[in-house]
Parts: sequence; structure tokens; C-alpha cells
Amino acid sequence: MLLLQLDRKSHNPIYLQIVNQIKEKTASDILKPGTKLPSTRQMAEKLGVNRSTVYKAYQELWAQGYIESRPGSYSKIRKRPKIATPELKLEQSTLAWNHVTTAASQRIYQDYLKFKPEQSTPQTKDTINLAQLDIDPRLFPVQDFRRCVNQILMDQGPKVLGYGEYMGYKPLRETIAKRLQMHGILADSDEILITNGSQNGIDLLLKLLTNSGKKVVIESPTYAIILPLLKYHQAELVTVPMKKNGLDLNRLKKTLETQPVSFLFTMPNFQNPTGITSTQSHREELLSVCEAHQIPVVEDGFEEEMKYFGKVPPPIKSMDRQNICIYLGTFSKVLFPGLRIGWITADKECIQRLVSIKRFSDLTSSYVLQAAVNEFCERGYYDLHVKRMNRIFRKRMQTAIKAMQKYLPKEYVSWNEPAGGYLIWVQIKNIPKHEAEWIQIFKENRVLVSPGRYYFPHPTKDICFRLSIAMLNEQEITEGIKRMARAIQKTKST
Amino acid sequence: MLLLQLDRKSHNPIYLQIVNQIKEKTASDILKPGTKLPSTRQMAEKLGVNRSTVYKAYQELWAQGYIESRPGSYSKIRKRPKIATPELKLEQSTLAWNHVTTAASQRIYQDYLKFKPEQSTPQTKDTINLAQLDIDPRLFPVQDFRRCVNQILMDQGPKVLGYGEYMGYKPLRETIAKRLQMHGILADSDEILITNGSQNGIDLLLKLLTNSGKKVVIESPTYAIILPLLKYHQAELVTVPMKKNGLDLNRLKKTLETQPVSFLFTMPNFQNPTGITSTQSHREELLSVCEAHQIPVVEDGFEEEMKYFGKVPPPIKSMDRQNICIYLGTFSKVLFPGLRIGWITADKECIQRLVSIKRFSDLTSSYVLQAAVNEFCERGYYDLHVKRMNRIFRKRMQTAIKAMQKYLPKEYVSWNEPAGGYLIWVQIKNIPKHEAEWIQIFKENRVLVSPGRYYFPHPTKDICFRLSIAMLNEQEITEGIKRMARAIQKTKST
Repeated sequence: MLLLQLDRKSHNPIYLQIVNQIKEKTASDILKPGTKLPSTRQMAEKLGVNRSTVYKAYQELWAQGYIESRPGSYSKIRKRPKIATPELKLEQSTLAWNHVTTAASQRIYQDYLKFKPEQSTPQTKDTINLAQLDIDPRLFPVQDFRRCVNQILMDQGPKVLGYGEYMGYKPLRETIAKRLQMHGILADSDEILITNGSQNGIDLLLKLLTNSGKKVVIESPTYAIILPLLKYHQAELVTVPMKKNGLDLNRLKKTLETQPVSFLFTMPNFQNPTGITSTQSHREELLSVCEAHQIPVVEDGFEEEMKYFGKVPPPIKSMDRQNICIYLGTFSKVLFPGLRIGWITADKECIQRLVSIKRFSDLTSSYVLQAAVNEFCERGYYDLHVKRMNRIFRKRMQTAIKAMQKYLPKEYVSWNEPAGGYLIWVQIKNIPKHEAEWIQIFKENRVLVSPGRYYFPHPTKDICFRLSIAMLNEQEITEGIKRMARAIQKTKST
Repeated sequence: MLLLQLDRKSHNPIYLQIVNQIKEKTASDILKPGTKLPSTRQMAEKLGVNRSTVYKAYQELWAQGYIESRPGSYSKIRKRPKIATPELKLEQSTLAWNHVTTAASQRIYQDYLKFKPEQSTPQTKDTINLAQLDIDPRLFPVQDFRRCVNQILMDQGPKVLGYGEYMGYKPLRETIAKRLQMHGILADSDEILITNGSQNGIDLLLKLLTNSGKKVVIESPTYAIILPLLKYHQAELVTVPMKKNGLDLNRLKKTLETQPVSFLFTMPNFQNPTGITSTQSHREELLSVCEAHQIPVVEDGFEEEMKYFGKVPPPIKSMDRQNICIYLGTFSKVLFPGLRIGWITADKECIQRLVSIKRFSDLTSSYVLQAAVNEFCERGYYDLHVKRMNRIFRKRMQTAIKAMQKYLPKEYVSWNEPAGGYLIWVQIKNIPKHEAEWIQIFKENRVLVSPGRYYFPHPTKDICFRLSIAMLNEQEITEGIKRMARAIQKTKST
């Protein structure tokens, strides 16, 4: 005899109570496979509920595989050994992931695990973070942006919530084209592809260009997060050291003369991590060397808008008459990093080839935020915001440099003075401590910096750190530098 | 003598007028390299402007590489051969893209060009589109969603506009976990990775699993957009034909017994393109076969929420006690396609490995929209919306089936009756016309359908079409079927 207890005061609908209790009784083997259930009429009478309620419950049980279906009725408990219950489901897969996954994915997983511990370092509230290149969220123009999203959803609603064009929201591409003109770059909207942030742009470019057999030329040190991706793509690297005015042009020339190269990745402004800005003539020569060898130049202009000290030459792309330069831009380093909106500007055919990869990798990027950013630009908010960011970071960088000059002991520490952006590259010398020890020492003094080894493709003996002022105000910057200075002073005298 | 003409009524600031005119004169060779410019004081007097205005103009010209810098002054026109002007910039790159790009990218580009013409078919307003699987934008709950975005930006502003967690917005992962429970799937939030739509999830999985040397098992026909991606990843394919109750299990068994396989890709509900739903026992057997061979099952649950006729078994993932099933979900087929929010649910370690690939491919996905969707779910809007979509499409699908029974000539056309979703698979027989001819005939009758060959990994002789009712209302559906019927009637009698 099947006994069910219904609670008519419960929030659970009656049919679901029937379903759950029959499932429980099946699980605990009170109802064995093959057991006949009462007909819907009988069950309805016995429980004092509507017959349709029982019917709905049986249907649901059928759908979930608990009872067998016979023409016209559903009445036998089904043999059902395979449903995963919390008790039966394994904590870990029976699959050996190292066995079933690709070698490339295993490489990137190892790199990921290496990066991870640093990220999860517990930070006390009082720690000053000179490590991260996330811009200060206190400066986010949230309310202006909110108004733009609102407007876009009111005016365009369904249009920006369906699949968009593979290349991205056209009005935004036009806006970006206009903005690029201010930096001397001539591009039509069909020479621009919107990407899920610059990193997605880099990934697309590596998919397009990383030819086995040909080498990739990168600066040393370089952007840390490109290194695991290059490894994933099995790129063979040639490194060109950074010099005071930009990458070593002689080395670049020799490399291109002696080896097959697929492309050069360079950051001419406020290079990440060194903060170095190359000169106009350096850019011209770099381009003409690559033109001579017909090697694509991938120019990462991630902080193009942060030229707040003036006197920074226009991008390499602005001099690119032969259309061999592929330019990466982003809104992440001046507006909101979390928008994940970047772009690639290049020759039309190159863009079409990138579109083809992107189209099959993720169909399209979300239109809503692209349209909202475009609205933000069209209302003039973006111009004002860039000016404000420039004003604020001009002062913050001046404060940083002043604090460094005042507090850091020059016999032990050297650094560069950047022409803009957020980054300062620091070298510690004449104190016999390893990088990892320094990181620990700084941490104990409640200041975080980014270890130099992240940025070097090959190990180096130099003890370097990348400081980022992106998320700190003037007071915090000064305090951070003071703590570094104190840590260095204490260490050198032990 | 340097003559400049300033327009004080112009919207262009004075300094920019100076910049532009000097640039023009340089371009037209009136100002030759080496020419000395007046000092800022002289120039300011001559033009009757503030000296700081001239200073700003000279600084800008220096930054753009037009004048040379000497300590304390900027006064000589610079030799500047390389700037790209509209006249000098080439329409096409000098690079031969087929030479500099990877073989894999060339494969995907060719596939992209193949797909493209269909897409850009000019549609008259009067054409009925039974081809596209985009859901009807008239049903988008735009205003509810707008309220959610607003709320999120008001309450959480900066938090959702910075870089988020690699795995995605945690509250949304928790919401998805709860929602999955309704479908019988047990998953913690750390077994869920948010992706840029399902397609991004598929791409990540191919990167993780497509081992050279091992084969990928797919259904035939299958989801069209996975095919070029598989080709890009150089996957060797084994196809298993679709039968009435799901993929051919005997063929699957034989395949797994005789060949090394990296994974199986399957769509148990309303398969794309056939609309076929596999039975409970089919799902159980499929899983146990893959368990026996320890082969990961990639289950694409793209229309899990669209089980509006009831009686569809729970997902394979719900029976997965060994954690070998990797489940793909999405909001694109029930809420807004343009959000580009999907997810992967799998074993924790598998998810971590996918995270490692995603982290280096695009850092993170945008938090704003994830948080807004979560708000949408938490307010109960999502439940209501799913119910509404189910109610509406139950009727629309009934309408479609009724119209097909009424109007299509059964000697020449056969089709399946789907258990939910948006797709109906149609076969035309006994009329000697090629697929391309049919597409043309339908187009002339102002109805678009999707050609079967898109979905077959290998050419087939069958004349099949995928009909999608996703973007049409009942009236449009009936009219579309009528037009198909008319086209077939006319054609068979010629």
C-alpha cells in the first residue's frame, strides 16, 4: 500500500509533493522497480486531490525517468540505476584529465596554477597594492554610464539584445575610428574589429599569425599574460631587450635578417612592465625595418589615452602606409576594465580573417555594452572622463616620482620616469636578496609589488619589480613608497 | 613668411587650427624640413593670441612628430617621411595574408567565406524567415531587464565594472546551480564556468579536448557552427547518424570499440538541426557506453528550458555519477541571444582547466550583464519569462505542425514532430531538384529555410531543410508553411 502525506499549507505545490515522495520511496527501495502505481483516478480519490494534479505528478515522474510509460497510463516503477544523487555522484571525475586533454591545454593549465597563488594572497585592508594594473574604481563614471545603458535599452531595446554583427556595433566602430584619428590613425569602421577586451584581440592574433616554423619576436621584459598564451600556441620566441628609448633596434634588425619571423609584438607607449616610451624616430625606424622584411607589427596601444605629460609620439600605426601594422586598443585602461571591450585596427583583409576566427569562437560580442559605450562617447562623457583621468594621473605620477626621489635610497634602487601611463619599473641592487625574498619582505611591510620574473620570457638575475599606481590615490602612493623605502632600509642594514 | 588664418568663430579650438594649418603646409611642402618656426612669443604676437595657445600647438606638433625638439624650444620643421596620410596609405596591405597566416586560420577563413553569402541575402520585408534560430525579439523582456541593469549599477556600480573572477559572477553561478537542480543536475558554483555564450564554451572545450591522434565523435547531421571550428582544431571526425530516438547507439559502441576517441558531442533535446529528442533509456545507454570507455560526453543543452510539451527526459548530466559529462548551457535560446552568456558545468578539475584557457584568452567575461541576469533571475522574472516562452512556443509549434499537416503534400514531404524547442527537420522526396534549386525556389516564394548541407559533416544525397519557428508568430508560421507548400506544388507539377 502506497502511503503519501500531503501538506496543504506548504509552499510546495501538491503535485510536486507527490513527485518528491514517490522519488524518495524509490530511492529508499520502498517502491521497487516493477511496482504498480494506483491509477490517477484511484490516487486522486485516496489523496482527496484533483485527478489532473495526480496526472501532472505522474507526467513529471515519467519525464524524470521514475516510472514506465505504457499507452494511456503511467503506472510501473521503472528500473532506474543511473541517476546521480548527492550520495552517488563522485567528488572527482573518473577521467584522468591529464590523459584526455591536449598537450597545449596542459601547458596553459600549469602556467595558470603558477600565477594563481599570487592572486589569492590574502590582503589585509591596510595593504597598499602597487602590484595590480586595475584602474582605481573610485574614478569610475558609474552614474553617467548607467544613464547611457538606460537610454540605449529604452531607445534600441530588442536591437541591442539580439545577435549583432560579427565585427561589433557599427556606431561604436565609427566612434573608435574618429577617436583614432585624434591619434593620427586613419581607419574606416570596416578596418576595426571589436573584441572581448584586448586579451581576446591578442588571442585572435596569435591564432591568425603564430605559424609553426616561424618565430615570434617579443620585447624582454614584456606583457606577462601574453607569455602563457604564446606557449599554448607553441610559438618559438625571439626576445629583443628593452633599451632606454624602446626595444633594441639593432637586435631587431639582426633577428629579422637571420631568422624567419611571423610577427613582432611591441608596446611603444609606457611599455608593460618597464613604462618605457619609444621616440618618434625609434618608431619610424622600427616600422621601416619591419616593412623591409614584410613582417606584421602588432602594436599594443593599451594606454594610448594616458599621455598626460604630453610629448609622446603618435602610434606606429599612424605612420603605417603599407598597412602592415595591426593595432590593439582597449577601454579597459581608461574607462572600465570589466566592460571587456577592446578592438583591433588593421588592413581590411586582415580584419576579415580575424572576424572569421572570432565568428566561430564566440559568434558575436555583446551589443548592449558596446552601444552604451558608444552613447557614453557621443554624449561627450568619454572626452571629459579621459581629461579627468589625465589630470588626476598626471598628479599621481608626479607624486609617485617625488616620493621615490625623496624616500628610496639611490645606492640601492633605480627606476625610470615614465612619460605617462601607470607603470614604474624598479630595480634593486647591491643587496644580496632574491626576488622572492623581497616580495616577502615587502608583504611584511604591507606593500605589494609585482615580481619582475613574471615579465621575462627567460630567467634573469636582475632584481626588478613593476609598480603600478593605477588603483591608488596620492596619499596611498606616497605611503606605499615609504613602506618600500623602510623595507629596503631595514633589509640592507641586516 | 608663415601665414596662418584663424577663424575665431569656428568650433575648432585656436591651438588646433594652428596645428592643422602647419601640418597642411608641411604636407604641401610650403614648410620644408629644416624651416625654422617663429618663437612662441613672436607667433602669439603676430596672431593676436595667448602665448600658451601657441605653446600648446607647438607641443602637439612635436608630439605628432612634425617639429623637432631642442632643449627649451621647438622650432624646426622635422623631416617626416613616414606618416600615413589618406593619399599615401595603401588600400590593401603589402602583406600577402595567405603567406603570413596560419594554415588553421586559412581553413576557418574559407569556411567563413562559404557561410557569408547566405547571411547577406537581401530579404524583402515580406520574406518569411524559417531559417534563423534567433528567438523572436518581440518577446524580449527588455523593460524588466533594464530595471535589473539599473538596479545593479546603482547598488554595485564599481564592483561590476572592474575585472571579475575568471569563473564568472559568483551569485549568477549559484543561481545557475539552483536552476540546474530543477533539471536534475547537481552542481556547485565551482563546477560552473560562465562563458561568452555557448559557442565560446564549445571553443574552450575543443581547445581542452581535441587531441591529435584521437577522434571526435559527432552526430550527423549536427550543429553547423561546430564544423568549421573542429576543422580549425584539426579534429578527425567520426560521425554517428541520427535515428528516430537519438544517435545510433550501435554505431557509437562500434566506434568506441575500434577507434581512439577524445570525446562525443551530443544534443539530446530537440537536436540541431533534426529536432530529435532522445529517450530516457537512450540517454542511460549512451552514458554507460561512454563510461565503459571513459570518454567524456559533451552534452549541449542549448534548449533545456524549452521542454514545453512536457515528457522530455532529464539531461544526461543528471545521470552522470562518474562526472564524465560536460554540460553546456546558455541564456541565448530563451532570454536574449545578444547577452552572450552561457556556461559549462563539469567536474571541478575539468572546470579549472577550462578556466586556465579562458583566463589567458580573454581574462574575464563582463560582470555587468552577468549581474543583471542574476538580478533578473532573483526577482523571479526569469521563471515567469520561461513560462511565458513555453506557453507561447507550445502554441506556435502546434500551429506549425497543424499547418504542415494541412498544407504540405505528404507524398513529397516528410518531417518529424519535435518534443519542444524551435526546430523542425523536413525532407523533400520524389521531386528531381537539387538542394540549391529548392533554396532558390523557396526564396522566389518569399520564404527562407536553412539548407541541410550546412549540418552534414559529409555530403549527402537527401534533400533536407531545417525550419526554425524561433522568430515567427503563429500567423507568420502558417503563412511560411503555406508558401513552402505552394512552392512544392508548383515545382512538382512542372
